Amino acid sequence: MSSYDVIVIGGGPGGYLAAELVAGAGKRTLLVEKEQLGGTCLNVGCIPTKSLLHSAKLYKHTTSSAAHGVTAEGASYDWPAMQSWKDGAVKTLVTGVAAMERRLGVDVVHASASLVGPGQVAIGSDIHDTEHVIIATGSAPVMPAIPGAAGNPRVVDSTGILRLVEVPERLVIIGGGVIGVEFAGLFSMLGTTTTVIELLPEILPFADADVAAAVREGMPQVDFQLGCRVLSIDEDKVAYERADGTGGTIPADVVLVAVGRRPLLEGWGATESGLDFSPAGVRVDDRMRTNLPQVWAVGDVTGRVLLAHAAYRMAEVAAANILEPHRAAADGQVMRWDTVPWAVYGEPEAAGVGLTEGQARSRGLNVVTASVPGYMSGRFVAEQGVSTPGLAKVVADRDSGRLLGFQLVGPYASEYVWGAAVALESEFTVADLRQVVVPHPTVAELVREATWALKF
Amino acid sequence: MSSYDVIVIGGGPGGYLAAELVAGAGKRTLLVEKEQLGGTCLNVGCIPTKSLLHSAKLYKHTTSSAAHGVTAEGASYDWPAMQSWKDGAVKTLVTGVAAMERRLGVDVVHASASLVGPGQVAIGSDIHDTEHVIIATGSAPVMPAIPGAAGNPRVVDSTGILRLVEVPERLVIIGGGVIGVEFAGLFSMLGTTTTVIELLPEILPFADADVAAAVREGMPQVDFQLGCRVLSIDEDKVAYERADGTGGTIPADVVLVAVGRRPLLEGWGATESGLDFSPAGVRVDDRMRTNLPQVWAVGDVTGRVLLAHAAYRMAEVAAANILEPHRAAADGQVMRWDTVPWAVYGEPEAAGVGLTEGQARSRGLNVVTASVPGYMSGRFVAEQGVSTPGLAKVVADRDSGRLLGFQLVGPYASEYVWGAAVALESEFTVADLRQVVVPHPTVAELVREATWALKF
Repeated sequence: MSSYDVIVIGGGPGGYLAAELVAGAGKRTLLVEKEQLGGTCLNVGCIPTKSLLHSAKLYKHTTSSAAHGVTAEGASYDWPAMQSWKDGAVKTLVTGVAAMERRLGVDVVHASASLVGPGQVAIGSDIHDTEHVIIATGSAPVMPAIPGAAGNPRVVDSTGILRLVEVPERLVIIGGGVIGVEFAGLFSMLGTTTTVIELLPEILPFADADVAAAVREGMPQVDFQLGCRVLSIDEDKVAYERADGTGGTIPADVVLVAVGRRPLLEGWGATESGLDFSPAGVRVDDRMRTNLPQVWAVGDVTGRVLLAHAAYRMAEVAAANILEPHRAAADGQVMRWDTVPWAVYGEPEAAGVGLTEGQARSRGLNVVTASVPGYMSGRFVAEQGVSTPGLAKVVADRDSGRLLGFQLVGPYASEYVWGAAVALESEFTVADLRQVVVPHPTVAELVREATWALKF
Repeated sequence: MSSYDVIVIGGGPGGYLAAELVAGAGKRTLLVEKEQLGGTCLNVGCIPTKSLLHSAKLYKHTTSSAAHGVTAEGASYDWPAMQSWKDGAVKTLVTGVAAMERRLGVDVVHASASLVGPGQVAIGSDIHDTEHVIIATGSAPVMPAIPGAAGNPRVVDSTGILRLVEVPERLVIIGGGVIGVEFAGLFSMLGTTTTVIELLPEILPFADADVAAAVREGMPQVDFQLGCRVLSIDEDKVAYERADGTGGTIPADVVLVAVGRRPLLEGWGATESGLDFSPAGVRVDDRMRTNLPQVWAVGDVTGRVLLAHAAYRMAEVAAANILEPHRAAADGQVMRWDTVPWAVYGEPEAAGVGLTEGQARSRGLNVVTASVPGYMSGRFVAEQGVSTPGLAKVVADRDSGRLLGFQLVGPYASEYVWGAAVALESEFTVADLRQVVVPHPTVAELVREATWALKF
């Protein structure tokens, strides 16, 4: 059979970028993807949701800008047209990925593949030899066993909700993580009566509670039911109860189950090949090496950080270590998990990077924090007024002055958080960041304001 | 008379922040402002323009979102309501400055002040003693002697255009700098027939021409007349000619003259006190010291970088050097002019920091550049499509790999440019920035893409 230098299993962000990087350096590279190139992110994740969220924001602007002097009669949205724009964006980007693989000489095969062992990948009945294998099979939505969910046409996951033929009047979302909050924003901006039921006492559990609360306060049109366990879905009614035994039922035309995603560990030889993995993902070190020689894993399948940009970085690290194993570590080509940012889209946006206050305290650090409200930014006031929730929170080490983390809520947070990632990568102190000049007026100035608000 | 540690002349961003910082450290501080606290920026500059631009963007969203599935009939804007929101934002922020001065114990006097010499400031007929004086008198629009301009009620500057009682049908803007481009964006989005006449061959002369051209292409509704000298304004007609002798006249209900701003050097004792200044501004070193002992100057009056955020930083540097003269330099409390970003607001936005390609070449550096189009960003495609102009351009030193500068055109540019400023402050190489993880999907990813596109 054909023989490759690198075979990549899975064509999402981690897989396609890894293939591009090693092929661009001259490696004979095969990329195997059983569905569409682009994976979850491009096809049923980041890109479609941001496209639809943008339309929803435009609709909100059309209907809610009277205070800014802008009004419209007969504002309406056209869900099929929104879908059509979204489909166009997805198609453009997927086509772009295919073109890039072709340009860099990556062989792309649409098929299922299986890791046989180091240096061997099966596609159908053929065994391909390869020097390296990169596992990038991604993740899938978790579907918990809720009584009444299975077979109920009203119940969808994050893929199914993108295929709705019409906007529901009543939506219940089970799970207040990133996906739940983004879809709550999307549909509530379109006028859907939206409820989020979250098991934990607060949404977005990876953020500090004060930060998550600001996001929630920024979405007053959504009914958040916190600390609630879903008991069952009975036709169009979602029953839940609180720890104290109280509870209720909420009617829903659509129920989105968004309780998390799990690494995709079945169907590609994980067990048979002797790979070290657990339900949490394929075990990797900070160079993306698995326990098997020259078998690497990147992206969601590692279970480390299930975000497309983390997958990109893992792909870069794996590629650098494949291409220049002796130089890679010295060149910084290792994963630095603490500088991977996160973002939640909608109105408001939220983003963060580094340690939360909770994480920093649990590591035993001598923590100092400051939080400034959105209205400390002139642009925030000019665009949002003073009563819109928003904040920038900074966490630092009181002993060393080192910056540890940032969390942001408000417009543009997803776009300006990367500057905080640069500051963390640079191992900046509070004094260093205070000296950085940030354009005025921007909402990004809140980060700088937060560092000035820190009291040592 | 009363005696102070620090007297600040001028209550704009440079002056009020300097006063806050020295007063916060215990200095007896007097801030003298003859008009409103907040200066040009808060009252007739950054804040009112961004407020009105936001309204104009909302109006554009209301009328131009059909491709995104959002339509409205009877869309309209209400100029007085836009003005009213703007006035509210200005009032909030000016009130906030006043409250902050009060909280920190700054004495504020609304009066004209004059520098008598080191340690002496006159207010009316009173002479006040002080250890330090900080000059922060700002700048004013330049009004060139165009025949027919003086006394013509149609001719306004950047302050006058904010006071228009109605939106003009036809607007001619003389000058394609930041102010000209922002007002062109504002009024053209509201439907005004807008022409910009620029003397130079390209708008935004502080940017590379390819970057400025992308901004221009992003505003197809504006008629840009480049390389044109304005000859006269005859009632409602602006006459211009090109270097080749061709030219024409353009009818206008309003003519905005926006050819630049000049440091305000009159009326506060600059000449009488023996201060070293030229028409370009008060001469300062990188600690904001003038030639006179313990007399400092910050902000636009220095003529260095006429931007509010530069004034803030100059205020911090001056304050640090007043408070801790022996430590300040070691603590980095000097102006680093090359890391001050700029931003142009509207649709599209533009921003930059560091050296342009032209500047880097004129310094004799061995320059390498890369520019990536907006559609390399998934969010850009999801929100703007592929044909909207946009780019990220990076300039680096081929010999050292050091990053030198960034220029950005497209949505959110003003918000995400600060990350590039952090990278420059950190003296990042290209390899360093390639390793920073930027959230996906964001337009900010273009910066990272541009560094990956650099060919060494």
